[in-house]
Amino acid sequence: MTDGNQRGILYGLGVGPGDPELLTVKALRVLERVPVVAYVASGGGPSLARSIVAGYLGGGQVEIALDVPIATDPGPARDAYGKSAAEIAGHLRDGRDVAVLCQGDPFFYGSFMYLFERLAGEHRVEVVPGVTSLTAAAALAGMPLASRQETLCVLPATLCEETLEARLAANDVAAVVKVGRHLSKVRRVLGRLGYAERARYVERAGMDGERVLALDDAGDGPAPYFSIVLVGVEAVER
Amino acid sequence: MTDGNQRGILYGLGVGPGDPELLTVKALRVLERVPVVAYVASGGGPSLARSIVAGYLGGGQVEIALDVPIATDPGPARDAYGKSAAEIAGHLRDGRDVAVLCQGDPFFYGSFMYLFERLAGEHRVEVVPGVTSLTAAAALAGMPLASRQETLCVLPATLCEETLEARLAANDVAAVVKVGRHLSKVRRVLGRLGYAERARYVERAGMDGERVLALDDAGDGPAPYFSIVLVGVEAVER
Repeated sequence: MTDGNQRGILYGLGVGPGDPELLTVKALRVLERVPVVAYVASGGGPSLARSIVAGYLGGGQVEIALDVPIATDPGPARDAYGKSAAEIAGHLRDGRDVAVLCQGDPFFYGSFMYLFERLAGEHRVEVVPGVTSLTAAAALAGMPLASRQETLCVLPATLCEETLEARLAANDVAAVVKVGRHLSKVRRVLGRLGYAERARYVERAGMDGERVLALDDAGDGPAPYFSIVLVGVEAVER
Repeated sequence: MTDGNQRGILYGLGVGPGDPELLTVKALRVLERVPVVAYVASGGGPSLARSIVAGYLGGGQVEIALDVPIATDPGPARDAYGKSAAEIAGHLRDGRDVAVLCQGDPFFYGSFMYLFERLAGEHRVEVVPGVTSLTAAAALAGMPLASRQETLCVLPATLCEETLEARLAANDVAAVVKVGRHLSKVRRVLGRLGYAERARYVERAGMDGERVLALDDAGDGPAPYFSIVLVGVEAVER
Protein backbone atom coordinates (compact mmCIF):
# COMPACT_ATOMS: atom_id res chain seq x y z
CA MET A 1 0.00 0.00 0.00
CA THR A 2 3.00 2.29 0.51
CA ASP A 3 4.90 0.40 -2.12
CA GLY A 4 7.61 2.24 -4.04
CA ASN A 5 6.36 3.87 -7.19
CA GLN A 6 2.82 2.55 -6.90
CA ARG A 7 0.26 5.26 -6.40
CA GLY A 8 -2.31 5.32 -3.66
CA ILE A 9 -6.03 4.81 -4.20
CA LEU A 10 -8.53 7.51 -3.30
CA TYR A 11 -11.63 6.14 -1.58
CA GLY A 12 -14.86 8.10 -1.40
CA LEU A 13 -16.16 6.37 1.69
CA GLY A 14 -19.88 6.50 2.44
CA VAL A 15 -20.22 6.18 6.22
CA GLY A 16 -24.01 6.24 6.41
CA PRO A 17 -26.40 8.69 8.04
CA GLY A 18 -25.02 8.74 11.57
CA ASP A 19 -25.38 5.46 13.44
CA PRO A 20 -21.91 3.82 13.42
CA GLU A 21 -23.66 0.49 12.85
CA LEU A 22 -24.99 1.75 9.51
CA LEU A 23 -21.50 1.66 8.04
CA THR A 24 -21.04 -1.12 5.52
CA VAL A 25 -18.63 -3.98 6.10
CA LYS A 26 -16.68 -2.70 3.10
CA ALA A 27 -16.35 0.84 4.44
CA LEU A 28 -15.18 -0.55 7.76
CA ARG A 29 -12.56 -2.72 6.08
CA VAL A 30 -11.23 0.19 4.00
CA LEU A 31 -11.22 2.45 7.05
CA GLU A 32 -9.16 0.05 9.12
CA ARG A 33 -6.62 -0.33 6.34
CA VAL A 34 -5.92 3.14 4.93
CA PRO A 35 -3.02 5.18 6.30
CA VAL A 36 -4.72 8.54 5.61
CA VAL A 37 -8.24 9.67 6.48
CA ALA A 38 -9.68 13.00 5.27
CA TYR A 39 -12.92 14.82 6.02
CA VAL A 40 -14.52 18.21 5.67
CA ALA A 41 -14.35 20.29 8.84
CA SER A 42 -15.43 23.78 7.90
CA GLY A 43 -13.73 26.58 9.81
CA GLY A 44 -11.92 24.11 12.05
CA GLY A 45 -15.26 22.92 13.45
CA PRO A 46 -16.17 19.31 14.17
CA SER A 47 -16.73 16.81 11.36
CA LEU A 48 -19.95 14.82 11.51
CA ALA A 49 -18.49 12.16 9.21
CA ARG A 50 -15.48 11.75 11.50
CA SER A 51 -17.66 11.53 14.59
CA ILE A 52 -19.61 8.66 12.98
CA VAL A 53 -16.48 6.54 12.57
CA ALA A 54 -14.58 7.78 15.65
CA GLY A 55 -14.96 4.40 17.38
CA TYR A 56 -13.40 2.60 14.44
CA LEU A 57 -10.27 4.77 14.08
CA GLY A 58 -7.21 3.10 15.52
CA GLY A 59 -5.26 6.28 16.17
CA GLY A 60 -2.33 5.42 13.94
CA GLN A 61 -3.70 7.19 10.89
CA VAL A 62 -2.81 10.56 9.43
CA GLU A 63 -5.92 12.75 9.53
CA ILE A 64 -6.56 15.63 7.17
CA ALA A 65 -9.29 18.12 8.11
CA LEU A 66 -10.37 19.86 4.91
CA ASP A 67 -11.36 23.42 5.64
CA VAL A 68 -13.99 24.12 2.99
CA PRO A 69 -16.42 27.02 3.43
CA ILE A 70 -20.11 26.10 3.53
CA ALA A 71 -20.90 29.51 2.03
CA THR A 72 -22.70 29.55 -1.29
CA ASP A 73 -20.12 31.91 -2.81
CA PRO A 74 -18.34 29.60 -5.27
CA GLY A 75 -15.01 31.46 -5.41
CA PRO A 76 -13.59 30.65 -1.96
CA ALA A 77 -15.08 27.14 -2.10
CA ARG A 78 -13.33 26.49 -5.41
CA ASP A 79 -10.00 27.58 -3.95
CA ALA A 80 -10.52 25.46 -0.86
CA TYR A 81 -11.40 22.33 -2.84
CA GLY A 82 -8.38 22.94 -5.06
CA LYS A 83 -6.13 23.16 -2.00
CA SER A 84 -7.73 20.06 -0.43
CA ALA A 85 -7.34 18.08 -3.64
CA ALA A 86 -3.68 19.05 -3.85
CA GLU A 87 -3.03 17.90 -0.29
CA ILE A 88 -4.75 14.56 -0.96
CA ALA A 89 -2.89 14.18 -4.27
CA GLY A 90 0.42 14.52 -2.41
CA HIS A 91 -0.36 11.44 -0.33
CA LEU A 92 -1.60 9.49 -3.36
CA ARG A 93 1.56 10.27 -5.29
CA ASP A 94 3.64 9.03 -2.37
CA GLY A 95 1.74 5.73 -2.57
CA ARG A 96 -0.57 6.20 0.39
CA ASP A 97 -4.26 5.32 0.09
CA VAL A 98 -6.59 8.09 1.27
CA ALA A 99 -10.19 7.64 2.45
CA VAL A 100 -12.42 10.70 2.32
CA LEU A 101 -15.19 10.22 4.87
CA CYS A 102 -18.62 11.13 3.48
CA GLN A 103 -21.74 11.27 5.62
CA GLY A 104 -24.42 9.19 3.88
CA ASP A 105 -23.35 8.33 0.35
CA PRO A 106 -20.48 10.11 -1.47
CA PHE A 107 -22.54 10.89 -4.58
CA PHE A 108 -25.87 11.77 -2.96
CA TYR A 109 -25.85 15.49 -2.14
CA GLY A 110 -22.30 15.31 -0.87
CA SER A 111 -19.22 17.44 -1.37
CA PHE A 112 -17.04 14.50 -2.38
CA MET A 113 -17.89 15.13 -6.02
CA TYR A 114 -15.80 18.30 -5.95
CA LEU A 115 -12.74 16.29 -4.94
CA PHE A 116 -13.65 13.47 -7.33
CA GLU A 117 -13.83 15.93 -10.20
CA ARG A 118 -10.34 17.22 -9.46
CA LEU A 119 -8.63 13.89 -8.77
CA ALA A 120 -10.33 11.18 -10.83
CA GLY A 121 -8.47 12.10 -14.01
CA GLU A 122 -5.04 11.43 -12.60
CA HIS A 123 -5.67 8.98 -9.76
CA ARG A 124 -7.45 5.72 -9.19
CA VAL A 125 -10.66 6.43 -7.30
CA GLU A 126 -13.03 3.95 -5.73
CA VAL A 127 -16.40 5.11 -4.45
CA VAL A 128 -17.90 2.99 -1.67
CA PRO A 129 -21.66 3.62 -1.60
CA GLY A 130 -23.33 4.19 1.75
CA VAL A 131 -26.77 4.24 3.33
CA THR A 132 -28.33 7.65 2.68
CA SER A 133 -30.25 9.76 5.18
CA LEU A 134 -33.16 9.37 2.76
CA THR A 135 -33.67 5.64 3.26
CA ALA A 136 -32.80 6.02 6.96
CA ALA A 137 -35.62 8.59 7.25
CA ALA A 138 -38.09 6.30 5.50
CA ALA A 139 -37.09 3.40 7.76
CA LEU A 140 -37.55 5.52 10.89
CA ALA A 141 -40.89 6.93 9.77
CA GLY A 142 -42.20 3.56 8.61
CA MET A 143 -42.97 5.11 5.22
CA PRO A 144 -42.14 3.16 2.05
CA LEU A 145 -40.40 5.51 -0.39
CA ALA A 146 -41.53 4.07 -3.69
CA SER A 147 -42.66 0.87 -5.28
CA ARG A 148 -43.82 -0.51 -8.58
CA GLN A 149 -44.76 2.26 -11.03
CA GLU A 150 -44.12 5.19 -8.70
CA THR A 151 -41.75 8.03 -9.40
CA LEU A 152 -39.68 9.29 -6.48
CA CYS A 153 -38.54 12.87 -6.58
CA VAL A 154 -35.78 14.08 -4.28
CA LEU A 155 -35.51 17.82 -4.11
CA PRO A 156 -33.67 20.31 -1.95
CA ALA A 157 -35.75 22.72 0.13
CA THR A 158 -33.43 25.49 -1.04
CA LEU A 159 -35.29 25.66 -4.38
CA CYS A 160 -37.56 28.65 -4.90
CA GLU A 161 -41.19 28.22 -3.86
CA GLU A 162 -42.57 28.01 -7.41
CA THR A 163 -40.11 25.35 -8.57
CA LEU A 164 -40.65 23.36 -5.39
CA GLU A 165 -44.40 23.39 -5.95
CA ALA A 166 -44.25 22.49 -9.63
CA ARG A 167 -41.92 19.54 -9.04
CA LEU A 168 -43.85 18.24 -6.05
CA ALA A 169 -47.06 18.41 -8.06
CA ALA A 170 -45.56 16.40 -10.92
CA ASN A 171 -44.40 13.33 -9.00
CA ASP A 172 -46.01 10.56 -6.94
CA VAL A 173 -43.77 10.47 -3.91
CA ALA A 174 -41.19 12.95 -2.82
CA ALA A 175 -38.50 13.67 -0.29
CA VAL A 176 -37.54 17.24 0.45
CA VAL A 177 -33.97 17.29 1.75
CA LYS A 178 -31.91 20.04 3.43
CA VAL A 179 -35.05 21.43 5.05
CA GLY A 180 -33.30 23.57 7.67
CA ARG A 181 -34.54 27.16 7.63
CA HIS A 182 -36.90 26.43 4.71
CA LEU A 183 -39.42 24.52 6.81
CA SER A 184 -42.25 27.07 6.66
CA LYS A 185 -41.89 27.38 2.88
CA VAL A 186 -42.07 23.60 2.50
CA ARG A 187 -45.13 23.48 4.75
CA ARG A 188 -46.89 26.23 2.75
CA VAL A 189 -46.27 24.44 -0.54
CA LEU A 190 -47.44 21.06 0.75
CA GLY A 191 -50.52 22.70 2.25
CA ARG A 192 -51.46 24.31 -1.07
CA LEU A 193 -51.02 20.98 -2.88
CA GLY A 194 -53.17 19.16 -0.33
CA TYR A 195 -50.24 16.90 0.55
CA ALA A 196 -49.88 17.84 4.22
CA GLU A 197 -51.81 14.80 5.44
CA ARG A 198 -49.45 12.32 3.86
CA ALA A 199 -46.25 14.20 4.77
CA ARG A 200 -43.97 13.47 7.72
CA TYR A 201 -41.16 15.55 9.13
CA VAL A 202 -38.08 13.46 10.00
CA GLU A 203 -35.29 15.03 12.00
CA ARG A 204 -31.73 13.66 12.29
CA ALA A 205 -32.61 10.19 10.93
CA GLY A 206 -30.00 7.64 11.92
CA MET A 207 -28.39 10.01 14.44
CA ASP A 208 -28.81 10.62 18.15
CA GLY A 209 -32.04 12.49 18.80
CA GLU A 210 -33.77 11.25 15.64
CA ARG A 211 -37.53 11.84 15.59
CA VAL A 212 -40.60 11.78 13.34
CA LEU A 213 -43.39 14.33 13.54
CA ALA A 214 -46.52 15.29 11.67
CA LEU A 215 -45.76 18.33 9.55
CA ASP A 216 -47.95 20.53 11.73
CA ASP A 217 -46.10 19.50 14.88
CA ALA A 218 -42.68 20.40 13.55
CA GLY A 219 -42.81 23.94 14.90
CA ASP A 220 -42.38 27.26 13.15
CA GLY A 221 -38.72 27.95 13.72
CA PRO A 222 -35.92 26.73 11.48
CA ALA A 223 -35.34 22.96 11.48
CA PRO A 224 -31.88 21.35 11.73
CA TYR A 225 -30.03 21.04 8.43
CA PHE A 226 -30.35 17.26 8.68
CA SER A 227 -34.11 17.12 8.43
CA ILE A 228 -36.21 15.68 5.64
CA VAL A 229 -39.87 15.95 4.76
CA LEU A 230 -41.23 12.75 3.22
CA VAL A 231 -44.36 12.84 1.12
CA GLY A 232 -45.73 9.32 0.91
CA VAL A 233 -48.08 7.52 -1.40
CA GLU A 234 -51.77 7.69 -0.70
CA ALA A 235 -52.15 4.00 0.06
CA VAL A 236 -50.37 0.74 -0.50
CA GLU A 237 -52.36 -1.23 -3.04
CA ARG A 238 -51.16 -4.79 -3.10
CA MET B 1 -35.61 -13.37 22.11
CA THR B 2 -37.72 -16.52 22.56
CA ASP B 3 -38.84 -15.35 25.93
CA GLY B 4 -42.22 -16.56 27.19
CA ASN B 5 -45.06 -14.22 26.38
CA GLN B 6 -42.85 -11.60 24.75
CA ARG B 7 -43.49 -11.18 21.06
CA GLY B 8 -40.84 -11.32 18.41
CA ILE B 9 -39.65 -8.33 16.40
CA LEU B 10 -40.01 -8.22 12.63
CA TYR B 11 -36.91 -6.82 10.91
CA GLY B 12 -37.03 -5.50 7.37
CA LEU B 13 -33.38 -6.07 6.63
CA GLY B 14 -31.74 -4.15 3.79
CA VAL B 15 -28.87 -6.33 2.56
CA GLY B 16 -27.53 -3.98 -0.09
CA PRO B 17 -27.26 -4.34 -3.87
CA GLY B 18 -25.37 -7.62 -4.09
CA ASP B 19 -21.81 -7.47 -2.75
CA PRO B 20 -21.89 -9.17 0.67
CA GLU B 21 -19.50 -6.46 1.90
CA LEU B 22 -22.15 -3.83 1.23
CA LEU B 23 -24.23 -5.12 4.12
CA THR B 24 -24.25 -2.78 7.09
CA VAL B 25 -22.74 -3.75 10.42
CA LYS B 26 -26.25 -3.50 11.86
CA ALA B 27 -27.80 -5.85 9.29
CA LEU B 28 -25.02 -8.33 9.94
CA ARG B 29 -25.58 -8.18 13.70
CA VAL B 30 -29.35 -8.70 13.32
CA LEU B 31 -28.78 -11.52 10.85
CA GLU B 32 -26.47 -13.42 13.16
CA ARG B 33 -28.92 -13.13 16.02
CA VAL B 34 -32.40 -13.87 14.65
CA PRO B 35 -33.78 -17.40 14.80
CA VAL B 36 -35.92 -17.00 11.65
CA VAL B 37 -34.92 -15.65 8.24
CA ALA B 38 -37.45 -15.07 5.46
CA TYR B 39 -37.08 -14.05 1.81
CA VAL B 40 -39.04 -13.95 -1.41
CA ALA B 41 -38.33 -16.90 -3.70
CA SER B 42 -40.94 -16.80 -6.43
CA GLY B 43 -42.04 -20.15 -7.75
CA GLY B 44 -39.50 -21.97 -5.63
CA GLY B 45 -36.67 -20.27 -7.54
CA PRO B 46 -33.49 -18.89 -5.99
CA SER B 47 -33.57 -15.78 -3.80
CA LEU B 48 -31.09 -13.05 -4.70
CA ALA B 49 -31.35 -11.56 -1.21
CA ARG B 50 -30.51 -14.91 0.36
CA SER B 51 -27.57 -15.46 -1.96
CA ILE B 52 -26.13 -12.09 -0.85
CA VAL B 53 -26.03 -13.14 2.80
CA ALA B 54 -25.39 -16.87 2.27
CA GLY B 55 -21.87 -16.59 3.70
CA TYR B 56 -23.18 -15.04 6.90
CA LEU B 57 -25.87 -17.62 7.69
CA GLY B 58 -24.78 -20.01 10.40
CA GLY B 59 -27.09 -22.85 9.39
CA GLY B 60 -29.00 -22.99 12.66
CA GLN B 61 -31.78 -20.69 11.53
CA VAL B 62 -35.28 -21.50 10.37
CA GLU B 63 -35.64 -20.28 6.77
CA ILE B 64 -38.93 -19.30 5.19
CA ALA B 65 -39.04 -19.00 1.40
CA LEU B 66 -42.01 -16.77 0.55
CA ASP B 67 -43.56 -17.86 -2.73
CA VAL B 68 -44.93 -14.60 -4.11
CA PRO B 69 -45.76 -14.31 -7.81
CA ILE B 70 -43.87 -11.64 -9.72
CA ALA B 71 -46.88 -11.31 -12.04
CA THR B 72 -48.58 -7.95 -12.20
CA ASP B 73 -52.00 -9.48 -11.57
CA PRO B 74 -52.73 -8.20 -8.05
CA GLY B 75 -55.13 -10.95 -6.99
CA PRO B 76 -52.73 -13.90 -6.60
CA ALA B 77 -50.03 -11.58 -5.22
CA ARG B 78 -52.41 -10.31 -2.55
CA ASP B 79 -53.24 -13.86 -1.49
CA ALA B 80 -49.56 -14.82 -1.42
CA TYR B 81 -48.56 -11.83 0.70
CA GLY B 82 -51.43 -12.57 3.05
CA LYS B 83 -50.25 -16.16 3.43
CA SER B 84 -46.62 -15.06 3.91
CA ALA B 85 -47.61 -12.48 6.52
CA ALA B 86 -49.59 -15.11 8.41
CA GLU B 87 -46.64 -17.49 8.47
CA ILE B 88 -44.32 -14.75 9.75
CA ALA B 89 -46.90 -13.64 12.32
CA GLY B 90 -46.96 -17.17 13.73
CA HIS B 91 -43.26 -16.97 14.58
CA LEU B 92 -43.63 -13.45 16.01
CA ARG B 93 -46.48 -14.52 18.25
CA ASP B 94 -44.35 -17.41 19.52
CA GLY B 95 -41.70 -14.88 20.51
CA ARG B 96 -39.25 -15.47 17.68
CA ASP B 97 -37.66 -12.52 15.87
CA VAL B 98 -37.92 -12.73 12.08
CA ALA B 99 -35.65 -10.98 9.58
CA VAL B 100 -37.04 -10.49 6.08
CA LEU B 101 -34.08 -10.18 3.71
CA CYS B 102 -34.50 -7.31 1.24
CA GLN B 103 -32.13 -6.73 -1.65
CA GLY B 104 -31.05 -3.07 -1.52
CA ASP B 105 -33.22 -1.13 0.92
CA PRO B 106 -36.57 -2.44 2.25
CA PHE B 107 -38.51 0.73 1.34
CA PHE B 108 -36.89 1.54 -2.01
CA TYR B 109 -38.80 -0.33 -4.74
CA GLY B 110 -39.00 -3.45 -2.63
CA SER B 111 -41.75 -5.90 -1.80
CA PHE B 112 -41.22 -5.62 1.95
CA MET B 113 -43.82 -2.88 2.13
CA TYR B 114 -46.56 -5.42 1.42
CA LEU B 115 -45.55 -7.41 4.49
CA PHE B 116 -44.99 -4.23 6.52
CA GLU B 117 -48.49 -3.07 5.70
CA ARG B 118 -49.98 -6.33 6.95
CA LEU B 119 -47.87 -6.77 10.08
CA ALA B 120 -46.91 -3.31 11.41
CA GLY B 121 -50.27 -2.76 13.07
CA GLU B 122 -50.02 -5.72 15.38
CA HIS B 123 -46.27 -6.33 15.67
CA ARG B 124 -43.15 -4.40 16.45
CA VAL B 125 -41.30 -3.77 13.20
CA GLU B 126 -37.81 -2.37 12.74
CA VAL B 127 -36.61 -1.40 9.29
CA VAL B 128 -32.84 -1.51 8.78
CA PRO B 129 -31.98 0.69 5.81
CA GLY B 130 -29.55 -0.62 3.21
CA VAL B 131 -27.38 0.59 0.35
CA THR B 132 -29.57 0.85 -2.75
CA SER B 133 -28.62 -0.28 -6.25
CA LEU B 134 -29.05 3.40 -7.18
CA THR B 135 -26.08 4.71 -5.21
CA ALA B 136 -24.13 1.54 -6.06
CA ALA B 137 -24.71 2.30 -9.75
CA ALA B 138 -23.57 5.91 -9.34
CA ALA B 139 -20.45 4.77 -7.48
CA LEU B 140 -19.58 2.25 -10.19
CA ALA B 141 -20.19 4.70 -13.02
CA GLY B 142 -18.30 7.51 -11.30
CA MET B 143 -21.36 9.72 -11.76
CA PRO B 144 -22.49 11.96 -8.88
CA LEU B 145 -26.25 11.62 -8.49
CA ALA B 146 -27.16 15.05 -7.24
CA SER B 147 -25.75 17.98 -5.36
CA ARG B 148 -26.69 21.42 -4.15
CA GLN B 149 -29.85 22.70 -5.86
CA GLU B 150 -30.43 19.70 -8.11
CA THR B 151 -33.56 17.61 -8.19
CA LEU B 152 -33.10 13.87 -8.55
CA CYS B 153 -35.90 11.91 -10.13
CA VAL B 154 -36.05 8.14 -9.81
CA LEU B 155 -38.49 6.55 -12.18
CA PRO B 156 -39.27 3.02 -13.28
CA ALA B 157 -38.79 2.16 -16.94
CA THR B 158 -42.16 0.45 -16.86
CA LEU B 159 -43.92 3.83 -17.16
CA CYS B 160 -45.49 4.62 -20.51
CA GLU B 161 -43.31 6.46 -23.00
CA GLU B 162 -45.14 9.81 -22.65
CA THR B 163 -44.96 9.90 -18.85
CA LEU B 164 -41.32 8.85 -18.92
CA GLU B 165 -40.49 11.67 -21.30
CA ALA B 166 -42.43 14.34 -19.40
CA ARG B 167 -40.84 13.44 -16.07
CA LEU B 168 -37.33 13.19 -17.46
CA ALA B 169 -37.75 16.59 -19.11
CA ALA B 170 -38.85 18.20 -15.84
CA ASN B 171 -35.91 17.24 -13.61
CA ASP B 172 -32.17 17.90 -13.52
CA VAL B 173 -30.80 14.45 -12.92
CA ALA B 174 -32.55 11.14 -13.18
CA ALA B 175 -32.20 7.45 -12.66
CA VAL B 176 -34.37 5.06 -14.61
CA VAL B 177 -34.70 1.82 -12.66
CA LYS B 178 -36.04 -1.61 -13.64
CA VAL B 179 -34.84 -1.11 -17.21
CA GLY B 180 -35.08 -4.76 -18.29
CA ARG B 181 -37.07 -5.17 -21.47
CA HIS B 182 -37.77 -1.43 -21.68
CA LEU B 183 -34.26 -0.48 -22.78
CA SER B 184 -35.12 0.58 -26.33
CA LYS B 185 -37.98 2.75 -25.07
CA VAL B 186 -35.69 4.46 -22.57
CA ARG B 187 -33.09 5.02 -25.27
CA ARG B 188 -35.68 6.53 -27.65
CA VAL B 189 -36.91 8.95 -24.97
CA LEU B 190 -33.42 10.05 -23.95
CA GLY B 191 -32.49 10.51 -27.59
CA ARG B 192 -35.49 12.75 -28.24
CA LEU B 193 -34.66 14.84 -25.15
CA GLY B 194 -31.02 15.21 -26.21
CA TYR B 195 -29.89 13.49 -23.00
CA ALA B 196 -28.17 10.47 -24.57
CA GLU B 197 -24.69 12.01 -24.23
CA ARG B 198 -24.92 12.38 -20.48
CA ALA B 199 -26.59 9.02 -19.87
CA ARG B 200 -24.86 5.81 -18.79
CA TYR B 201 -26.20 2.28 -18.73
CA VAL B 202 -25.24 0.41 -15.54
CA GLU B 203 -25.85 -3.31 -15.33
CA ARG B 204 -25.92 -5.37 -12.12
CA ALA B 205 -24.27 -2.67 -9.96
CA GLY B 206 -22.76 -4.17 -6.83
CA MET B 207 -23.16 -7.72 -8.14
CA ASP B 208 -20.93 -10.13 -10.01
CA GLY B 209 -20.64 -9.08 -13.63
CA GLU B 210 -21.38 -5.41 -12.98
CA ARG B 211 -20.57 -3.10 -15.88
CA VAL B 212 -21.05 0.43 -17.20
CA LEU B 213 -21.68 1.26 -20.85
CA ALA B 214 -22.56 4.23 -22.98
CA LEU B 215 -26.24 4.05 -23.81
CA ASP B 216 -25.49 3.29 -27.46
CA ASP B 217 -23.30 0.34 -26.53
CA ALA B 218 -25.94 -1.35 -24.39
CA GLY B 219 -27.31 -3.41 -27.26
CA ASP B 220 -30.82 -3.69 -28.63
CA GLY B 221 -32.10 -6.71 -26.80
CA PRO B 222 -33.73 -6.64 -23.37
CA ALA B 223 -31.42 -5.74 -20.47
CA PRO B 224 -31.33 -7.62 -17.17
CA TYR B 225 -33.95 -6.52 -14.64
CA PHE B 226 -31.19 -5.14 -12.43
CA SER B 227 -30.04 -2.46 -14.79
CA ILE B 228 -30.27 1.28 -14.36
CA VAL B 229 -29.84 4.19 -16.72
CA LEU B 230 -28.32 7.23 -15.02
CA VAL B 231 -28.78 10.66 -16.52
CA GLY B 232 -26.13 12.93 -15.04
CA VAL B 233 -25.74 16.66 -14.70
CA GLU B 234 -24.15 18.56 -17.53
CA ALA B 235 -21.08 19.60 -15.54
CA VAL B 236 -19.90 19.93 -11.97
CA GLU B 237 -19.64 23.61 -11.22
CA ARG B 238 -17.76 24.11 -7.99
